[in-house]
Amino acid sequence: MDPRIRTHAETIVDHSTRIESGDDVVISMPAVADDLAVALHELVGERGANPVYLHNSDRATRAYLRASDEDAFETPDHQLALYEAADVFIIARGGPNVSEQSDVTPDTNAAYRRAMRPVLDERLGKRWCLTQFPSSGHAQLAGMSTEAYQEFVWDAVTLDWDAQRDHQAQMVEILDGADEVRIESGEETDVTMSVTGNPTLNDYGEHNLPGGEVFTAPVKESVKGRVHFDLPLYRKGKEIEGARLEFEDGKVVDHAAERNEDVLTGILNTDEGARYLGELGIGMNRSIDQFTYNMLFDEKMGDTVHMAVGNAYADTVDEENERNESAEHVDMIVDMSEDSVIEVDGDVVQRNGTFVFEDGF
Amino acid sequence: MDPRIRTHAETIVDHSTRIESGDDVVISMPAVADDLAVALHELVGERGANPVYLHNSDRATRAYLRASDEDAFETPDHQLALYEAADVFIIARGGPNVSEQSDVTPDTNAAYRRAMRPVLDERLGKRWCLTQFPSSGHAQLAGMSTEAYQEFVWDAVTLDWDAQRDHQAQMVEILDGADEVRIESGEETDVTMSVTGNPTLNDYGEHNLPGGEVFTAPVKESVKGRVHFDLPLYRKGKEIEGARLEFEDGKVVDHAAERNEDVLTGILNTDEGARYLGELGIGMNRSIDQFTYNMLFDEKMGDTVHMAVGNAYADTVDEENERNESAEHVDMIVDMSEDSVIEVDGDVVQRNGTFVFEDGF
Repeated sequence: MDPRIRTHAETIVDHSTRIESGDDVVISMPAVADDLAVALHELVGERGANPVYLHNSDRATRAYLRASDEDAFETPDHQLALYEAADVFIIARGGPNVSEQSDVTPDTNAAYRRAMRPVLDERLGKRWCLTQFPSSGHAQLAGMSTEAYQEFVWDAVTLDWDAQRDHQAQMVEILDGADEVRIESGEETDVTMSVTGNPTLNDYGEHNLPGGEVFTAPVKESVKGRVHFDLPLYRKGKEIEGARLEFEDGKVVDHAAERNEDVLTGILNTDEGARYLGELGIGMNRSIDQFTYNMLFDEKMGDTVHMAVGNAYADTVDEENERNESAEHVDMIVDMSEDSVIEVDGDVVQRNGTFVFEDGF
Repeated sequence: MDPRIRTHAETIVDHSTRIESGDDVVISMPAVADDLAVALHELVGERGANPVYLHNSDRATRAYLRASDEDAFETPDHQLALYEAADVFIIARGGPNVSEQSDVTPDTNAAYRRAMRPVLDERLGKRWCLTQFPSSGHAQLAGMSTEAYQEFVWDAVTLDWDAQRDHQAQMVEILDGADEVRIESGEETDVTMSVTGNPTLNDYGEHNLPGGEVFTAPVKESVKGRVHFDLPLYRKGKEIEGARLEFEDGKVVDHAAERNEDVLTGILNTDEGARYLGELGIGMNRSIDQFTYNMLFDEKMGDTVHMAVGNAYADTVDEENERNESAEHVDMIVDMSEDSVIEVDGDVVQRNGTFVFEDGF
């Protein structure tokens, strides 16, 4: 087994999820990540914890979704029971073909996600880590050889997370306790939102591996303005390009996309909460040095901000504020490297990707 | 996808487990059986049922077992919760290497099985089907090409199960209501047991696919005599050959094996119940025409009987009789084709493999 896989597994177990004796652990992986699963099972055994191994198969999920009646999805009681009783979730993405679910309709996906919402909520309330296995499918998506992509992924997940945490803490300090954030980029992005009261979290490789962002939740009905997401996103095997959203009183009142607009429409129509922002994030991981069409990495890149329509993480919402709830949580990215500023309470804190606390500001 | 895989999946869903709308289904398969899992997910979706897909990975299980402290295994609450809430279990065997767990010690295996006992009991109380995917590993074990082994497996699972049920019903009629069964074979096998009160079940491809046996439970303390199991069995990647058991008052008081006796000892030492018989079975499936070192098939062959040490199936034990309970259930086979008879209440009902109701008796 490649020794970098063991290092990856150790980071997940010891840093991201801090597995201890007696923990009930769910490990969900595609088959191509079996080496990572083997390394994780070994560590779970050493720690005296208990594994359940789910096969995260895009082919099987596609078959199930296409065969199902989209009006009849129900929350699976047995999966919910598993998730309720578990302490830790480790989920790896990475399959041989990222387009495997491209022929499932957006409506079916949205209906399925609504039914699975209680299962998702259970996981989000526990210790969990979402990570990436460097599969050939994701290498192809990134336009990279599998060997080069392995290097990219394993370098990114084994960063010095303590140093990264300290670097990001400077931005957390600026946002925590702030009231208004304004993001301007190019001709088409000018959006303001309140973050009053909502905590800003420092993501240094716990829930997401790699980590490398700071993020909070906008106050639900405060978002106004328009955003052009100039970096694309992949969603169930389809690329949404050039997405544009317009907000009034927090809600998406108009939307468009240059490519696969119907997929974007499907996301927004999932439920009431899918038309409100659940997250504002600022990418701060400069070791992720290229765009790979994979949100887990792309949203962490320096020189970017991202906003997610849909569910807000509970720990980013103050008790006094309403938490936006949704079965969806879809991140979209704005490139901030040129002609862009982030203002916090009227002060410019980032210009063209450079933070106020960095050299060259 | 090979159309025989769809037929296999249809047999599992419609004949073996009778999946209906709303059923919570657990599908547990090795990765090489993903085609079968895909076909099952499609049918589960069509029926309006809900799948959870477990990855049955021998490599991951081995890594976990070897890394664990064998004195510290505990029943995994999350897996138990999943099993309690599920309605149907579909489990396929078949991996790329049947020896994958050969370097896990018998003691570790026994301790793990004790901890997993409540999980096993949950499954046995529900609708379940254990079947085989024709993997290269099992083909190699059988000394067959993968293509020929596929033919063998898919022929066996798609038998005319209604005709098979009727054929076997003749033997059920003989055993149901009988008191004493005596099995003699060659020089070394002469064992008698009471089956008074215990129901005989007709296995025509429900819990086991392929099916093809009739079976009951011996009255726990009635078994006496000795048995030479002249067909070998594979157990966690090791072949137990030439196993011999001697019974007094139902209990194994002496045992030996020509090869891997320590594995047999490990099985018998699992718990108190592992030294008593939980099953007497009579193979009646003449379409399984060769021995493949795979109990799921071998025990169903015509001209054989098998006895299992360990757990007795609840529905083969009369309420008045004690059910033998164990975390183990290990079948072992006696070849009845030569110099052998089965007597029921003093009457010969099978001689050299031919039943009293068959031509040539």
